[in-house]
Amino acid sequence: MTILAIPGSLRTGSINRSLLEAAVEEAPEGVTIRILDLAGLPFYNGDLDNPADWPAEALAFADALRSADGVLFATPEYNHVFPGVLGNALDWASRPLGSVAPLKRKPVAVMGASPGLIGTARAQDHLKFVLMTIGAQVYSASGLVVGSARAKFEDGQLTDSETRRRLSLFLEAFVTYVHAEPVPALC
Amino acid sequence: MTILAIPGSLRTGSINRSLLEAAVEEAPEGVTIRILDLAGLPFYNGDLDNPADWPAEALAFADALRSADGVLFATPEYNHVFPGVLGNALDWASRPLGSVAPLKRKPVAVMGASPGLIGTARAQDHLKFVLMTIGAQVYSASGLVVGSARAKFEDGQLTDSETRRRLSLFLEAFVTYVHAEPVPALC
Repeated sequence: MTILAIPGSLRTGSINRSLLEAAVEEAPEGVTIRILDLAGLPFYNGDLDNPADWPAEALAFADALRSADGVLFATPEYNHVFPGVLGNALDWASRPLGSVAPLKRKPVAVMGASPGLIGTARAQDHLKFVLMTIGAQVYSASGLVVGSARAKFEDGQLTDSETRRRLSLFLEAFVTYVHAEPVPALC
Repeated sequence: MTILAIPGSLRTGSINRSLLEAAVEEAPEGVTIRILDLAGLPFYNGDLDNPADWPAEALAFADALRSADGVLFATPEYNHVFPGVLGNALDWASRPLGSVAPLKRKPVAVMGASPGLIGTARAQDHLKFVLMTIGAQVYSASGLVVGSARAKFEDGQLTDSETRRRLSLFLEAFVTYVHAEPVPALC
């Protein structure tokens, strides 16, 4: 099983990228977690709604989503919501509309870390809402909210053992969800 | 008075750009409405939180926001929310955090058009929510929701007289709002 892991921040030393790197280390047996950066993805443009017209980076992104068994997002929180760079990736991932969009019926999970106390809780809810709208199969039973992150990461490493334990449990639960029967869908 | 008008779509022949072009034509006396495209703006990156490090396009965008008396957004609706390209612009416009961010305390209004019946109503509410979070002075008494837009635009021109009348009233109301005393703010 392959899980694609997408950090919502482009920042060097992003704690959300570090959280995903810890997820790579904590991956359940038989599961490969691969991090995909959004830096190379161009802006979505409605002129390009036909994938035949998509730039190579967008096609590669769509292929990576399609070939993954599940997708794990780690998002920062900007202005109570997820960053525009992640929103732009979702715009690509939801096109073309209909059953062929890369995220359609794809099992997805959301986590996030921030220096503040609420640890991206609002941005995570917002991201889940948009993922549901896109028609992804959102793992909604749980999330992983990592607040006060400055005390939990050191030099890009997740050093807090309790957070690492919660991350490990979260990954196992999500993998079980990915293995489960798809939810019946109307379209 | 100068109003900066920002279409949330990059698409050639975007109906939201056409709606703003109609706004330019219907601008109240003494008001200049200037359209600003987001195509040249790079992705926000937390490494660049200090404006001294901002790319020229982001600095120009911030300057354009600062020098405008008000900002008028026209947004499409993708997956029930506004596009990532517009979210990315908001990420820039909300930095650096604090009273110096370009959109902070700036009077803003929201409108939008779509081929569907609800005419971007959800994306507009979402955009207002994020603009409030940023600390802009959101003109919240009204919005301009233009549904069934294929019947109201022709060759990039707003041809529906009732929509043009509503647009004109909306612009007058927003200009009155921009002229009004700033709302007291805690920070």
